[in-house]
Order: sequence, then C-alpha cells, then structure tokens
Amino acid sequence: MISNAISQQNWQCEPKNLYEPIGYTLALGGKRIRPALALLATEALGEKAESALDAALALEVFHNFTLLHDDLMDKADVRRGKPTVYRRWDENTAILSGDTMSIAAFDLLSKVPENFFKPVFSSFTKMAFEICEGQRYDIDFETKTQISQAEYIEMIRLKTAVLLATSLKIGAIIAGADEQTQAKFYEFGTNLGLAFQLQDDFLDVYGDEEKFGKKIGGDILCNKKTFLLISALEIAKGEILQNLQNWLEKTSFNPQEKISAITQIYNELGVDKLCREKIEFYHEKALKNLSEIKISAKNQEVFKKIVNMLMFRED
Amino acid sequence: MISNAISQQNWQCEPKNLYEPIGYTLALGGKRIRPALALLATEALGEKAESALDAALALEVFHNFTLLHDDLMDKADVRRGKPTVYRRWDENTAILSGDTMSIAAFDLLSKVPENFFKPVFSSFTKMAFEICEGQRYDIDFETKTQISQAEYIEMIRLKTAVLLATSLKIGAIIAGADEQTQAKFYEFGTNLGLAFQLQDDFLDVYGDEEKFGKKIGGDILCNKKTFLLISALEIAKGEILQNLQNWLEKTSFNPQEKISAITQIYNELGVDKLCREKIEFYHEKALKNLSEIKISAKNQEVFKKIVNMLMFRED
Repeated sequence: MISNAISQQNWQCEPKNLYEPIGYTLALGGKRIRPALALLATEALGEKAESALDAALALEVFHNFTLLHDDLMDKADVRRGKPTVYRRWDENTAILSGDTMSIAAFDLLSKVPENFFKPVFSSFTKMAFEICEGQRYDIDFETKTQISQAEYIEMIRLKTAVLLATSLKIGAIIAGADEQTQAKFYEFGTNLGLAFQLQDDFLDVYGDEEKFGKKIGGDILCNKKTFLLISALEIAKGEILQNLQNWLEKTSFNPQEKISAITQIYNELGVDKLCREKIEFYHEKALKNLSEIKISAKNQEVFKKIVNMLMFRED
Repeated sequence: MISNAISQQNWQCEPKNLYEPIGYTLALGGKRIRPALALLATEALGEKAESALDAALALEVFHNFTLLHDDLMDKADVRRGKPTVYRRWDENTAILSGDTMSIAAFDLLSKVPENFFKPVFSSFTKMAFEICEGQRYDIDFETKTQISQAEYIEMIRLKTAVLLATSLKIGAIIAGADEQTQAKFYEFGTNLGLAFQLQDDFLDVYGDEEKFGKKIGGDILCNKKTFLLISALEIAKGEILQNLQNWLEKTSFNPQEKISAITQIYNELGVDKLCREKIEFYHEKALKNLSEIKISAKNQEVFKKIVNMLMFRED
C-alpha cells in the first residue's frame, strides 16, 4: 500500500530539475518502516489503515527529505547503492529539491482527517524541529572533544528515535486513541529507535557485512562519534587513550589497519559489551512498553516482528 | 506590531548553532512588506489585524527562509549590509537553520484561527511550492541560452509575485472575505509583485545608488538574466549582438567599463524603454485591481501608499 501510494504521487511536474530528484529519492526504496508503523498503529487500534495513509506518506516524505539534506551536509556519495542527489545533480539541486520535499510533507499532512488534524500537525512539527536539533548536535559533536553518553543518547533520540515514536503516535491519534495510549506508543517508538540506532553503531564495527548491507568499519574510518567511540574516549586512560587519539589524528593510514587497531582498543576497553548492554536495555524497555499497549495478541505479534526485523534478529 | 512579534519569538533555544542563525536572519530587518500586506488586507475588510498575526509571521519567516537558502545557492556574501548566514557561519548551518525556519513557518501557520485554517494552509503550501519552482527556473535560466519574455515573467511571478499575492489573499481569507474578493487581492498582489521585480531589474542599471540602496550594475557584472538582458538578447542582431555576447563571455574586465558598455547596448536597443513600459503595464493593472476591491476610500489610500513605496515613487 505504501509503495503504491508513493509511486502514485505525481513527481513528474515542471520544472523537471526540481521534481525529478524528489521522485528519484523516493524511488530509492528502503524499508518504509515509518509509514508502516503509523498504519499498523491505526489498524491495531481498530481503525482502517487507510485513514492514516496521508499522514504515513507525510512521514516517509519528510524522512527522505532529511536523508537528502543530511547526505549533502555529510557529503555522502552513495545512498542505497545509488549516487546521492547532490552527486548525481549538484548541491543547489539537493538544497532546493529537499526544501520542496519538506513542503510536500506538510502538504500531505493537510489531507489528514479534519477531526485529528490539529494534534497530528502539532506532533509532526514538534518532531520536525527535533530532527533538525538532532542533526545539529550530530554536526556539533564532530568538533566537540568531550561528549557524555547521556548527550549522545539525547542526540540519537532527537535525530532518529522521535521519528519512529511520532509515526506510531500519529497512527494512534488517527485511530482516535486516548492520550495514554498515544504516549505508550510514543515511548515504545522512542526506545525502539534508541535500540535500533545503537545497534547500527554496533554493527558498523561488529556486524556481518552481508547481513548489515554496508561495509564494516565505515564509522571508524571517518572518526564518527558513535556510542562506541564516545564511550571509548570516556573510559580510556594513559597509553590506550594515547593510542586511540593517535589513530584518530592520523591523516594517512591503511584502512584495514585502522579498523583492526580501533576495534582492538574497543575490545580491550569493553565498549562492545557496554554497547550490547545498552542495546539490550532499550530493546527490553521497548518490549515492555509494547506489552503494556492494549491491543490484541495478534497485533502484539505484528509489532514484535517489526522489532525483531529492526534489531536484525530473526526468529 | 510585526517587528515586535518577530522579536518576541523565542529563537534562544538550544542548540545555539541551530537557532541563533534564525534569530540573526530575522533581525536583519527589511520592510516587512509581506506580513504588512496580510494584516492590512484583514483590517481593510473590517476584521482586527491581530487575527492575521500568526499567518503574517508565517509569511515573513517563510520569506526569510527562502532568502537564507537563496543566498547560499547564489553564494551571496552580503544581505542588508551584513554577512549572509553561510558566510558568517558555514554552508551546513545555512542548510539546517533554513530547514528549521521553513518548519517554523508551518508551525506558526497552525495557530491560524481554526475556521480559516484549511484555506489558509492550502494557499500557503501552493505558494511555497511555487517559490521553489521560481527559484529552480531562475537557476535553470543561468545556463539556458534563449529565454523568452513570457518565460521570464512566469519565473518572477513564481519567485517573487505569488508571495505578495498570497499574503494579501491570506489576509482576506482571515477577514472572512468571499472568494471573489480573495481572488482580486491575489491578482492585485501578483501584478504589484511583477511591477516591483521588473522595477528592481531596471533600477539595478538605471537607479540612483543612494535611493536604491544597492550598488548600480551588480546584475550586469554577474550576467544576471534580468528582463533587460533577456530582452536585449532577444532583440539584438548582427554587430550589437556580437558585442553583447563578447561582454558576457569576458572573464576579465574593468567593472565600470562593462557596466557602461552593456548599459550603452541596452540604450541602443531601447530595452530600457521596453522595461519601463512593462513596469507601467503591471503597475497600472495592479492599481486597476486595487480600485475594484470593495474597501473604503481610506483603505484604498493605504494600499496606494504601499504601491508607491514599493515602486520607489514618492508623492
């Protein structure tokens, strides 16, 4: 339903250089997890999924807008195996088509059933501000020397988790759920998002390349301030700290050597274990939140499947 | 009222690097013409101006968002005598704080009185799309060799005129005006916007530096495809065309010499006269639209004063 709805949007208008990159971005695919969460929440609460379709599309279009601009800000060349918009076209195209996608998201939102429009709109704008704040903290962290675990968790909450949380909450709003249920869905999404992002940090170092779908060690090579690195910098002392900082400062190195060396440091410091514990902590919290939501056992199973899928755990 | 309302918005939140550039941009000033038009339309139609205040702020914030991103796309260093955001901070800051301003505009819009929210929102998103389209055409024109006058007029309609038109229309909507009155205000704003932008093109070459507030000849130096240049390229033949194209292709030149030479070509071709006629054409149309709006003679005078102010004509 979601993929159909996305491809049915008309991105063929003029000027071509404005709308073509939007169609291109939305056609790159992805798991469509955010709109799926919105539709499933609506359905689990006894309302037709279709009622949440426009809101779900707004969430997916907004998500893809943030990816488009993030790729430009991060100078990322590839997204889902294809050149990013700024590489395939140019920087100005990425700016302007991104701006238009953000507007398109708000435009889709205006089609939400009238009686739920205000609360949906207000959740959506809150989330939109928070994602920008998260991205800003992420940029600021690049040049900040000391970042606490709490600051890092807050950054990924804003940048990643609130979108999952808001997708679920909006689905609940459109089903006419009470505020407590909305809040429970939101909390479930937040903890799921935190577990997911920490898992992503973990798998970038310790994952199986084929299952993960990305090259291992990418974050290490570009000194990305992940949970592993900020924890290592927090814990390391003396010689290990010196060794870690030497690697971070090197401008020329053998990539495999840097990945091995830093992974070795992580292992020595035990930040892999620390990260796995944190993932488990939020994963458990998410499952607990889910279990407290008053929906049928069948629907509980549906959401559990999604949790498992996001956590790369098959069972 | 507008300046107060803008400065009362809280742009002091964290992260500082996200919100400070927004406060900076909004504090740069300007004539606040768009929110003024919205408030005046509401008031002229017998409703309290305050009812349109949030919509008026949304229009001003959105306008300033487009300036912020346009300055980045155009690599403009100065805006209203101060460094642009991308120069004072950096490109990523300009992208992300601009994105946040666009969201802030939609957020302000959500405070519009409930009974008028849908039509206001729908006019606003239509305008937002059109401004992006206008900016895209403007970028595309830089590398396009042949642009007709009609294509140029359509570009400035999208990029500049629809925002004035929509400001007036939204003011009328919030006053509870019928559709015909809304449409008349919109048409008035469109023609006023076209006259204003053509006047801007004209004054960049033929204006009085002090009154215009910008250096004369800026558009000529960067080969900007203004009404004057696209008309000249359309009309010129033989030796004059060759001479014009030589000047456009030169990469090293004395600025004053280039300004004089191209102004001379414009004069020979009579595009100055052509431009003045076009300005007068849209100016007259705007005044005719205005005269057909059913508001008091006193309010007619208020809008006439704004027209005169925008057209740099004192009387």
